[in-house]
Amino acid sequence: MDIEADLLTSWATALLRRWGYTDADAEFLATTLVDANARGVDSHGVVRIPAYERRIAENLVDTRAVPKVDVSGAVIKVDANGAAGQIAARAAVESALELSREAGIACAAVRGSTHFGTAGYYARWLAGNGAIGIVVSNSEPIVVPHGGKKALLGTNPIAFAAPTESDAVSLDMATSTSAMGKVLIARATGQQVPDTWGVDDAGNPSTDPNAISALLPAAGPKGYGLAFLVEILGGVLSGAAVSHGLGSMYADFDRPQDVGHWILAINIEHFMPVAEFTKRSQALVELAHATEPAAQDNGVLVPGEPEERTRAERLRKGIPIPDEVVNELQQVGERHGVAFP
Amino acid sequence: MDIEADLLTSWATALLRRWGYTDADAEFLATTLVDANARGVDSHGVVRIPAYERRIAENLVDTRAVPKVDVSGAVIKVDANGAAGQIAARAAVESALELSREAGIACAAVRGSTHFGTAGYYARWLAGNGAIGIVVSNSEPIVVPHGGKKALLGTNPIAFAAPTESDAVSLDMATSTSAMGKVLIARATGQQVPDTWGVDDAGNPSTDPNAISALLPAAGPKGYGLAFLVEILGGVLSGAAVSHGLGSMYADFDRPQDVGHWILAINIEHFMPVAEFTKRSQALVELAHATEPAAQDNGVLVPGEPEERTRAERLRKGIPIPDEVVNELQQVGERHGVAFP
Repeated sequence: MDIEADLLTSWATALLRRWGYTDADAEFLATTLVDANARGVDSHGVVRIPAYERRIAENLVDTRAVPKVDVSGAVIKVDANGAAGQIAARAAVESALELSREAGIACAAVRGSTHFGTAGYYARWLAGNGAIGIVVSNSEPIVVPHGGKKALLGTNPIAFAAPTESDAVSLDMATSTSAMGKVLIARATGQQVPDTWGVDDAGNPSTDPNAISALLPAAGPKGYGLAFLVEILGGVLSGAAVSHGLGSMYADFDRPQDVGHWILAINIEHFMPVAEFTKRSQALVELAHATEPAAQDNGVLVPGEPEERTRAERLRKGIPIPDEVVNELQQVGERHGVAFP
Repeated sequence: MDIEADLLTSWATALLRRWGYTDADAEFLATTLVDANARGVDSHGVVRIPAYERRIAENLVDTRAVPKVDVSGAVIKVDANGAAGQIAARAAVESALELSREAGIACAAVRGSTHFGTAGYYARWLAGNGAIGIVVSNSEPIVVPHGGKKALLGTNPIAFAAPTESDAVSLDMATSTSAMGKVLIARATGQQVPDTWGVDDAGNPSTDPNAISALLPAAGPKGYGLAFLVEILGGVLSGAAVSHGLGSMYADFDRPQDVGHWILAINIEHFMPVAEFTKRSQALVELAHATEPAAQDNGVLVPGEPEERTRAERLRKGIPIPDEVVNELQQVGERHGVAFP
């Protein structure tokens, strides 16, 4: 079914309040989820709610927890303190924005966190406030190192965003070729996948989604190297768990995830007036748009533009939710007396 | 021929002094070039010296210029002021290191610069001084945007390095699949190349190195997105030239290159004691090494390790320089009375 974004946000907010979140926290969390759906990143949207329900019920996430924020110079150390990733990341972004206005640059390292939704949400938030944002997070291992047979690192996303005159350019990419979610969809629909997506148990690239047991890094050593950088910043530097030390959101219910994030805010005004910067970034966007496309029917887009188009369409037409997800969400809603719309 | 690294550095230093560089500047510049050769990145090594000779002769690079450094909070704006990229980047790294010791993090944006050698050199320098280093640079356009037919951005490298107990992990990658240098080698040796390297004039991927007129971004939209990030940080934010505004090192002798770099120094001590950090990063390295390899005869390496192995071998056996490059360097040496060893 297609459901209006606002309706979906209201429902998720009401549900999250029922679990103990304050009005503001519930609305923020719901907004991050529905924003992912609106941009077509459905794997990071409301489909996660049943897992949140279970992790909260198991006392692995504390809906009333307030992250601990420790500032030293232009760096911020955040201990999620049992809070969900979104709540911890919000504290990190707010603090980094404030510090970067004074120092010109600030970064926040977050430990003890959970999956925080899309990294791009926080990067775009920074870009909406006069900053260039870079956001990374480690995640549970599911990607083989270049030349390896078994998973070592997560899909370890990298996001960035910077303002333009029209809005912003933004990137939010996994450092693996594909997400595991796409492999699961191929399994469900009985389709083959490109041999660059993942490997079988022997470590050989496979086109059979049922045989794939771990993902491949994007562009081999490059994606592996970037994932390593993310693990260093998000995991090693923050004091969070690293590699197999991370708890799985869907499989480990005996321990917290202990995910780590790293968030950088670069205050543009310290380099040049924001209007000059956006004029320059807009010129680059227009150069990209003016590039002759390889296939005559497609134009060259800038990073973030495909997702912005999806968002515009979904805000108009509604968010498509597959029947099996609707069914799950209806059940969660019933269990807590908040009927799915 | 194979030539001892120290001998090559001494020769390049003597030559650079002859062109007006101070002893310290000449030695630094020579060291960055020979370090690239030692690590197997020969495209960024002494092969560049004849181009330096010409650009200095044409007054496009000033061997006596001192970069202008402007500090505001924890950010540094560097105007290369006619100096070579290495000299400008050195000023940026030194200033970022100093500021980051106080603020915990600092970044430097450099404008008006030239190709600065390998980005990894500066990242490793930072890692050798208690910091995590991230270094990017824009470069003359030679890579098509995802879905585009003509070049928009450069190979726009991203480098990072972080200390470990044994030394450091480091990454230095172009955001394109391949470097143009590799395409040129394939042309010279009459070999085909993978169809992921570049496109022909019609924008179609080609395996014929003679048909390739522009490179492809690594992993499509991911490499394109990362190159865009680099262009934003190195070009737009620094005030340097952007995209086609950049001068070509080898083709444009009527104007300076106006390359831009961006350098980030994260002082580890502000997050945890360096010894604790290196214990944690070393543990990650060892986890990687312990990962079962996909092919039985290869071990899983960490980023930077292949180049370190090449370096160890070349420092032992000498730096291999192809005959045609030796010939060119001999001629440069003769022109300036500094005989190639």
